[in-house]
Amino acid sequence: MIKVIRSPRAMQKIADAIHRNGKTIGFVPSMGYLHEGHLDLVRISEKKSDVVVVSIFVNPIQFGPKEDLSRYPRHFQRDKQLLAKEGVDYIFFPTARSMYNKNYTTYIELPDLSNVLCGKSRLGHFKGVATVVAKLFNIVKPDISVFGQKDAQQAVVLKRMTEDLNFPTKIIVAPTTREKDGLAMSSRNIYLTPEQRKQVPILYHALQHAKKMIEDGEKKCHEIIALMKELISSMPDADIDYIEIIDANTLQPIKEIKGKVLIALAVKFGKARLIDNIVV
Amino acid sequence: MIKVIRSPRAMQKIADAIHRNGKTIGFVPSMGYLHEGHLDLVRISEKKSDVVVVSIFVNPIQFGPKEDLSRYPRHFQRDKQLLAKEGVDYIFFPTARSMYNKNYTTYIELPDLSNVLCGKSRLGHFKGVATVVAKLFNIVKPDISVFGQKDAQQAVVLKRMTEDLNFPTKIIVAPTTREKDGLAMSSRNIYLTPEQRKQVPILYHALQHAKKMIEDGEKKCHEIIALMKELISSMPDADIDYIEIIDANTLQPIKEIKGKVLIALAVKFGKARLIDNIVV
Repeated sequence: MIKVIRSPRAMQKIADAIHRNGKTIGFVPSMGYLHEGHLDLVRISEKKSDVVVVSIFVNPIQFGPKEDLSRYPRHFQRDKQLLAKEGVDYIFFPTARSMYNKNYTTYIELPDLSNVLCGKSRLGHFKGVATVVAKLFNIVKPDISVFGQKDAQQAVVLKRMTEDLNFPTKIIVAPTTREKDGLAMSSRNIYLTPEQRKQVPILYHALQHAKKMIEDGEKKCHEIIALMKELISSMPDADIDYIEIIDANTLQPIKEIKGKVLIALAVKFGKARLIDNIVV
Repeated sequence: MIKVIRSPRAMQKIADAIHRNGKTIGFVPSMGYLHEGHLDLVRISEKKSDVVVVSIFVNPIQFGPKEDLSRYPRHFQRDKQLLAKEGVDYIFFPTARSMYNKNYTTYIELPDLSNVLCGKSRLGHFKGVATVVAKLFNIVKPDISVFGQKDAQQAVVLKRMTEDLNFPTKIIVAPTTREKDGLAMSSRNIYLTPEQRKQVPILYHALQHAKKMIEDGEKKCHEIIALMKELISSMPDADIDYIEIIDANTLQPIKEIKGKVLIALAVKFGKARLIDNIVV
């Protein structure tokens, strides 16, 4: 039977008891409204740990003042059923007040990794993500924690934070789960109109096209980006936030393809801001 | 036999083993060059936990560019002997490189508590303190950790950080240990010339005087501060950084004495910047 835990203190006690029994904890943090991508992370966690905890918490401090906090989709009962079916042991489902009391004032920043890609248009976003994940790590005490490659910058930020702050947790980054036509799964896909839904597979096609250009020997990043822009702009509702090619580890901009690179993009289609990426 | 542990990973494994054996860890973080004040913290830790760990680490990121990092006093062998005599179990004594690798970029900030008192003249100081203590908590995994009231703002910052980030550690704040003439013990007292050493007891006298004024019914903070200034300025080498009366919990400025207040001061005598405080 899946158990729902609402209090941070209760969750810590459960985590301590699991460790005292010599068992390992696998952890998948989420904001709920789960899709197949989340469930893939859960399945990886189950293969690699004894007890699986999924958190469902729409973290207010990672949303900007003009972002979609209040309308972010929520459906706890459905999430619970999906997780129960996957054999998850615990859902940690705290209130915002139990996570951030009225005197709350502690924030974790990673300046070298936050001011690129999504960090430029979403000021404070990665500060909010790093902070809540540090809190969740202290509450759930996981041995491993699984994140998706779809949120590439988030994965790099959290890996670095975990190492920098000496959290005893192993971070696993799982491949992006996609619809049949290539669209990366995301809770925000629900914002798309049927017409926009037909247009968005261009994002994955553009990434694949970039990959092929690199495999064919193209070295100049600006050439690759220009072609991706052209492809994506051909869709009437596409509003490009960024398309960038950067070093996959440091997230620093590069001019020529060299070593492992991350090709990442963020494009708005109506109310949905979609991100996607590949590592080449 | 006291054991000296240099690697963060090794220390984590020892902490895990202690917890697996059902024992508690008491922790006193320090920058070394120990005095009776530190040893008082160690003694409290020993009363309240099964295994005591003291860290000795002159944390570079809590010193400003013009501060005394390179000349901060160090004497590891003497420290080790003192701690062995107190029955301490482990000294965690890492290198700066093992704590901050070349890509290090994670910092913890508490904006509401950092821009008052010492935070105003020591920019970034409490960011460095909060960050290293979070790292040390993840490495040493203490059940309790003991800090001195002498560093009043540090104690408030670390209590809040521990609560905000859900660290499973209880913070204990111990009374300031003083020389017979009232001078608060500090590793930085060594910077004082014999002449300055004669002048510095004025700090404690001024604090005691303020306390008496409050007990006698004085409500106006500016009156109390004015008298403290007069007393301290009578010493030829005194160079006042600040004298403040603030709310003891929020560290916010107050005009009238109400509830628990913190009277705190920082005064330079030659090369030594001394701090002291009392709670009334």
